[in-house]
Amino acid sequence: MSPRIDHLGIAVESIAAARGFYEALGLRITHEETVEHEGVRVAMLPLGEARVELLEPLGPETVVGRFLAKRGSGLHHVAVHVDDIEAAWKELTARGVTVVSPAIQTGAGGHLYFFVHPKSTGGVLLEICQDPA
Amino acid sequence: MSPRIDHLGIAVESIAAARGFYEALGLRITHEETVEHEGVRVAMLPLGEARVELLEPLGPETVVGRFLAKRGSGLHHVAVHVDDIEAAWKELTARGVTVVSPAIQTGAGGHLYFFVHPKSTGGVLLEICQDPA
Repeated sequence: MSPRIDHLGIAVESIAAARGFYEALGLRITHEETVEHEGVRVAMLPLGEARVELLEPLGPETVVGRFLAKRGSGLHHVAVHVDDIEAAWKELTARGVTVVSPAIQTGAGGHLYFFVHPKSTGGVLLEICQDPA
Repeated sequence: MSPRIDHLGIAVESIAAARGFYEALGLRITHEETVEHEGVRVAMLPLGEARVELLEPLGPETVVGRFLAKRGSGLHHVAVHVDDIEAAWKELTARGVTVVSPAIQTGAGGHLYFFVHPKSTGGVLLEICQDPA
């Protein structure tokens, strides 16, 4: 495993309102899409080897909508990319780390991921992910 | 400017308790120091081109101690490295971004930094930094 930050998922009320700051810093939105089944609109802005992902809820009764209602705008999760997600799953669960996902999940484009509970990471919801094989 | 993530500053009650998860993920503490005038003990764990910085308060009446009392463990700030911090300062302030620091600051080892208020970034306290010239 040579882990690296894949992306920072930041929950915002409005991508249109939040993007200005990141653009002033020299970042650009390279991809934007609506993920209906997750109730979210996502804008991706490459930042070095990682990305900022701005997450705007499609409504209040969505994961990001409830997060905003409870916590306000801010970091929703940090995703760390690993080369071998199965090895990471085994190592973490063997050490008693609390994973949120019931198993390794397959997401859009075939990428693999699971989430680790904030209580195991120092208070940060952490996604472990791997590109499609 | 070709910005990249420099580090994620994560406020924790105890570095000793938090490090296990990151070590299970393959990260290692490469540097640890006590910064008395900031009231914090810092452990740095390289993660790709960036680092995780675990921040443990030296007491309750410190910046990180007050953060923990109010918010609990979690992400304290994200630091973004830029090649030209003066250009970044000018661009951001010209666009009305709210900076927290009164000016560009010089920190340990001569690195330069300033902080941007969460209200300008989508809810994340953001440090802009540059290595010593």
